[in-house]
Amino acid sequence: MIKTNPPVGMETAYELTEWLSCYGKTERGGVTRLLYDEKWQEAQSALKEKMEAAGLVSYYDDMGNLYGRLEGSSQKQSVILTGSHIDTVKDGGKYDGAYGVVAGILALQNLYKQYGSPKQTIEVVSLCEEEGSRFPLTYWGSGTVTGLRKSEHIKDLKDSAGISFTEAMKKAGFGLGRFREAKREDIECFIELHIEQGEVLERENKDIGIVSHIVGQRRYNVTVKGVSNHAGTTPMAYRKDSVYTSAVLIQTLIDQAKKTDSDLVATVGKIEVKPNIPNVIARETVFSIDIRHSEEDVLESFSSSVFAAFRQICQKHGTHVQIDNWMKEKPVPMNEKLSNLSADILNGEQTPYKIMTSGAGHDAQVFGRYVPTSLLFVPSHKGISHSPDEYTKAEDLEKGAQLLMKTIYALAYEGGK
Amino acid sequence: MIKTNPPVGMETAYELTEWLSCYGKTERGGVTRLLYDEKWQEAQSALKEKMEAAGLVSYYDDMGNLYGRLEGSSQKQSVILTGSHIDTVKDGGKYDGAYGVVAGILALQNLYKQYGSPKQTIEVVSLCEEEGSRFPLTYWGSGTVTGLRKSEHIKDLKDSAGISFTEAMKKAGFGLGRFREAKREDIECFIELHIEQGEVLERENKDIGIVSHIVGQRRYNVTVKGVSNHAGTTPMAYRKDSVYTSAVLIQTLIDQAKKTDSDLVATVGKIEVKPNIPNVIARETVFSIDIRHSEEDVLESFSSSVFAAFRQICQKHGTHVQIDNWMKEKPVPMNEKLSNLSADILNGEQTPYKIMTSGAGHDAQVFGRYVPTSLLFVPSHKGISHSPDEYTKAEDLEKGAQLLMKTIYALAYEGGK
Repeated sequence: MIKTNPPVGMETAYELTEWLSCYGKTERGGVTRLLYDEKWQEAQSALKEKMEAAGLVSYYDDMGNLYGRLEGSSQKQSVILTGSHIDTVKDGGKYDGAYGVVAGILALQNLYKQYGSPKQTIEVVSLCEEEGSRFPLTYWGSGTVTGLRKSEHIKDLKDSAGISFTEAMKKAGFGLGRFREAKREDIECFIELHIEQGEVLERENKDIGIVSHIVGQRRYNVTVKGVSNHAGTTPMAYRKDSVYTSAVLIQTLIDQAKKTDSDLVATVGKIEVKPNIPNVIARETVFSIDIRHSEEDVLESFSSSVFAAFRQICQKHGTHVQIDNWMKEKPVPMNEKLSNLSADILNGEQTPYKIMTSGAGHDAQVFGRYVPTSLLFVPSHKGISHSPDEYTKAEDLEKGAQLLMKTIYALAYEGGK
Repeated sequence: MIKTNPPVGMETAYELTEWLSCYGKTERGGVTRLLYDEKWQEAQSALKEKMEAAGLVSYYDDMGNLYGRLEGSSQKQSVILTGSHIDTVKDGGKYDGAYGVVAGILALQNLYKQYGSPKQTIEVVSLCEEEGSRFPLTYWGSGTVTGLRKSEHIKDLKDSAGISFTEAMKKAGFGLGRFREAKREDIECFIELHIEQGEVLERENKDIGIVSHIVGQRRYNVTVKGVSNHAGTTPMAYRKDSVYTSAVLIQTLIDQAKKTDSDLVATVGKIEVKPNIPNVIARETVFSIDIRHSEEDVLESFSSSVFAAFRQICQKHGTHVQIDNWMKEKPVPMNEKLSNLSADILNGEQTPYKIMTSGAGHDAQVFGRYVPTSLLFVPSHKGISHSPDEYTKAEDLEKGAQLLMKTIYALAYEGGK
């Protein structure tokens, strides 16, 4: 187990996050760094210098993922990888992704300063893309590293200005064969440190979240068809009102979700009414459903039972319902052994933590399909994210960075005992 | 009581409605005649000729309302008025308004042919405007005749092409002082024959509806404010979801409306969600409420009790509700003596009819504030109106026209006994 704190005079996770947020800073105090754009390029270049200054060997792959490597002394070729993504949503926060990258650099820098070369090679990665905010494709960074994403996925993609994915990539100097191939076979495990983007840790006064599963997610469009009629001349008994039916369905969904399991979340975030006129009974109402849970069985049984209830209600109302599933992502479990390593460290320090699920997607969910993966959270103030108001206290950032460092120490210096 | 049917060889109400629908016929088989436009002018001119051919003295007023007059033999100066409006919504039906005008002409023509001059003067009016479909103002016809609408109401109004109300009126030859003033003081009563625009008569197998009240109407915007959050990372227990709250409110409103009184109607036709994204808990949902009933007391007690329930629900959900009332029209009772006159005729013939409320607004509701007024309905197939699919069977048109004629006979030839 690691014994001392980092040397005095080192940069803190807070300072390094603030520094990185200058690349792409917006008027409202947020950050905009879109894949391959100028600010993105500047940020990756600055991180490359920072990695070198930290004593790491830095290099790009051909998709623009940036690595800093701390070579191990043993013969073992496989790599302990940490990091997160460098891109942001438009006018996003300083912490989402960026924090995991800078905390990774700090961890490797501190470990090297204090303990010299590790037994096993460690790398930190600044993944080129996760958000899907420039092109309609997510996880381009972790996807290209693991092999989930391939060149055929990008060939027809354009950004909102009409620039093709390939053109943007080449303009930034990638996709030209100048650097090593993105796909790797030598990753032994991946550890990602991230802000929670929810308010559970803050509400429950926990310093750290250890993620057991990244939840599975299903999205649906529900179309309720009724009959359009005059709001004044049609008695209530004769109506087939798609808005009224939808209100009953939405209430049924949410009430069922609340009863089912405290980990289950169900959201109706979008409603479209036709013709959407105050004095006309609406002929059609379409609403979205987003359901998430850490167990595929629960997702399946919950959605079946809710949709059976939907059909009964619509039959009773004389309306017609159509349920279209357009997203079905299975839950991804995190590696228990890696989670336990972090939990042991926190138990030893009596740091309050919570074993929890992640309701949001992360690079860890892509890596988690291929290699043992761990995802660690620090609190997000009020759960706000994807906003200039995203905020995590400096001391929480530091606690997360310390845990990351200590977990990597246990793996790379002590062999994960 | 009238004794014989109209002379053989006369035009039917069906034929005359079909004929009038040629002025402004649309590709989809509907009719578009907007106030003062070319088709409107052609239709009024054609009706003027038709009135003259029917033996009536025809004349315009200065706002473009067209009258056909059958002079009475008595000294009494006051006039029994029938008619409806000539304008339509865009791509509206053949019957809405037009039917009441042509049936009025037929009634006067038939009465004169059979019985000669009445004791009391009768006029039929083709009111220039009711729908508000060209300029954002309704009841310009009945409003100018009764004095409800004045020139100050139109001075800033423009149509969607930017043409001012005054300009359009003058271009059509009105508002220039060429014709008599629109406002009248000599109307003794007004009788309007109209399609139901609802499906009550058809469903209940009634030939005629005698309207007891034109309902009062209240419209509201309800704004529910919650807190926007991530759909994946926010447990159900922490949510303040404006969509969920709104669903509960809408269900409460409609369920209460169904329980209250079979004449009460309540409609939520419009919903706007912010930000309206599937994976974001909506911070704000705004929905419309349209409530109608024939008694002001019921409107008042219903809305108070529903909105009290709304406030309780929102308090329980931790959301905030704001209720804005932007329309409050009182019910207008029709004249009981006039209604009874028509009911007696129908009872004598054993024609099935229904005493009912009108959930839609009509010229009769403007006249009804000033003079004894009656509103008579014929069935609308499936309740469809404001559409090319608006349809009433020829025999139903004929039954309504007969009732109108007989009611006017009782008033003008028999002194309303």
